[in-house]
Amino acid sequence: MNKNYYAVLMAGGVGSRFWPVSTSEFPKQFHDMLGTGDTLIQKTFKRLNKFVPTENILILTNERYNDLVLEQLPMVKQEQVVLEPAMRNTAPCILYASLKIQKKNPDAVMIVAPSDHWIEDEEGFARNVEACFDKCEKEDALCTLGIKPTFPNTGFGYIEFDKENKEDLKKVNQFREKPNYETAKDFLAQGNFLWNAGIFMWSVKTIVDAFKAYQPSQYELFAKGIALYNTDSEQEFINENYPQAENISIDYAILEQSKKIYVLPATFDWNDLGTWGSLYDKLDKEEGDNAVVNSRVLLEDATGNMIRSPKDKIVVVDGLKDYIIVDKEDVLLIYPKSKEQDIKQVLVKVKEKFGKQYT
Amino acid sequence: MNKNYYAVLMAGGVGSRFWPVSTSEFPKQFHDMLGTGDTLIQKTFKRLNKFVPTENILILTNERYNDLVLEQLPMVKQEQVVLEPAMRNTAPCILYASLKIQKKNPDAVMIVAPSDHWIEDEEGFARNVEACFDKCEKEDALCTLGIKPTFPNTGFGYIEFDKENKEDLKKVNQFREKPNYETAKDFLAQGNFLWNAGIFMWSVKTIVDAFKAYQPSQYELFAKGIALYNTDSEQEFINENYPQAENISIDYAILEQSKKIYVLPATFDWNDLGTWGSLYDKLDKEEGDNAVVNSRVLLEDATGNMIRSPKDKIVVVDGLKDYIIVDKEDVLLIYPKSKEQDIKQVLVKVKEKFGKQYT
Repeated sequence: MNKNYYAVLMAGGVGSRFWPVSTSEFPKQFHDMLGTGDTLIQKTFKRLNKFVPTENILILTNERYNDLVLEQLPMVKQEQVVLEPAMRNTAPCILYASLKIQKKNPDAVMIVAPSDHWIEDEEGFARNVEACFDKCEKEDALCTLGIKPTFPNTGFGYIEFDKENKEDLKKVNQFREKPNYETAKDFLAQGNFLWNAGIFMWSVKTIVDAFKAYQPSQYELFAKGIALYNTDSEQEFINENYPQAENISIDYAILEQSKKIYVLPATFDWNDLGTWGSLYDKLDKEEGDNAVVNSRVLLEDATGNMIRSPKDKIVVVDGLKDYIIVDKEDVLLIYPKSKEQDIKQVLVKVKEKFGKQYT
Repeated sequence: MNKNYYAVLMAGGVGSRFWPVSTSEFPKQFHDMLGTGDTLIQKTFKRLNKFVPTENILILTNERYNDLVLEQLPMVKQEQVVLEPAMRNTAPCILYASLKIQKKNPDAVMIVAPSDHWIEDEEGFARNVEACFDKCEKEDALCTLGIKPTFPNTGFGYIEFDKENKEDLKKVNQFREKPNYETAKDFLAQGNFLWNAGIFMWSVKTIVDAFKAYQPSQYELFAKGIALYNTDSEQEFINENYPQAENISIDYAILEQSKKIYVLPATFDWNDLGTWGSLYDKLDKEEGDNAVVNSRVLLEDATGNMIRSPKDKIVVVDGLKDYIIVDKEDVLLIYPKSKEQDIKQVLVKVKEKFGKQYT
């Protein structure tokens, strides 16, 4: 395996639309959402570990998930788990991780990727990432993987690439925020728009230089600690300085500023597993087009439902169509699939009525 | 309390329409179906214990429920739990219990009652039973409490009483099996029909004499053991002889034969808690006419549902009307209330598909 390959897994999110399975105590990425025997972060780690050495994979997450990470990824050492002492969006933690990697290996190329997405074709994924790594090793490029849109989804950001470009890796014209439905339809009609899956690749030199250029004060804040990174004094420095970092996303801080952005249209199927409906879409269906995770079901006049329960629980459903039925120890949710985006509001109500321990 | 008062609680049934809460391992009468803090058998015991001395209450049940009885009724001694070594319907076990009581106290009057019905007005119940006891102490009468029908229920047997009779305790003309709907309507129109709630009162002398007269061979079978009842040798005798008893109900064996049957129209509200729907009817309703036991609910566009879960589980329901939603550790049931009678068939399918341990 190439010793210069590094990966940074983003594992600090909560996935609140997957409530009640995903909670702030135990978020989505630490659950076996698909019932495969692996949690999402385990699956993601294995996918990257096919071409990135184990010790070169860092996990960026929150203090409260440190134990979950070490438990679910026993091959990972504590020093690979990078804990954010405060929530400051993606730019600060990516800069911090990049500086740590650069100090170890100035020739490193790295991928930043979410820990909770679904990608079945691991070979295809590896090929796409390595193609980007090749480019990043040769030139000063910030690369991203773009997903070919299958419908005018208003829940994702889009990447517009240069139509004239005949290379595999295409020059990016601009990043576009989540569009409304009409705009999304227009994007699809134009044919040179891809979904932004939050998967980025670059050399440590290129990304650090980009921070120097576009976020000089943030660069300075974290550069002060370079002598301390990967030593016993690192944590103290970070605890003190990290909270002072500006709360800003990598998209806004760097990608929308730089002129050296490239996108590779992904050749693999991808699903962000953002909602119960997207999980439903991804799963194999049982009789009556019901998707079932963990449950043993007896279904009568039940179609299009997303059913999940603790392992081997018997679930008997009669007369339901297109429902999310999710049962966990202390919460049962029976909710129309068409209203899945409203689960965030359910969460707010549950917190008000029963306390935050359930959310 | 009157030392001659005795009670026999029938606690051997399974209540399969209350699946998945009621199972053959842990039937309905041992559950807190109403969420009151007491199981049904505990409630029934307390109701009787207001006028029947603790040590005079016998529990008739199956070997497998012996521990449940002793656990839930810690004031009951093992000798008060009468175990049927084989399922032989109600006549044999009532005769057996009556002979045991008669041996202890030949002046006893006794009530036979189901352990799993709901009666809120405990004072009214006590008054009605004591009125019957008075009659049974004075004369050779078999008494029953009849429930004034509120609708033409086809799920109960009916008791027809003598219209001309102006006494409170009315002479019974005949017992009628579960009628069809037209017949049930006709019963209600006639005005002298009551539901048979399976609550009977008599003196031990009267019931034993009735067995002698109408079921002489059954009487002989059990009379052989009189010397052994309430001694260490009883169980051996019963284990050997009980299985030889004819499988026959007390209604058919005695009540439909005797001419000395009286019925007192009950002055209290009664519910047999035979189905989830009957439980729903009995419970106080929350917002949207939902009946909730044990759960903490968040309901949106949800009406007429019967919801039950383990204590304090959060149940979020959106968009369901008239459903039974019952969650227990290893089974979740979501089923239309209108099909509640079909739960018995669900049980058969669950047994076939997943094994009898769930039923």
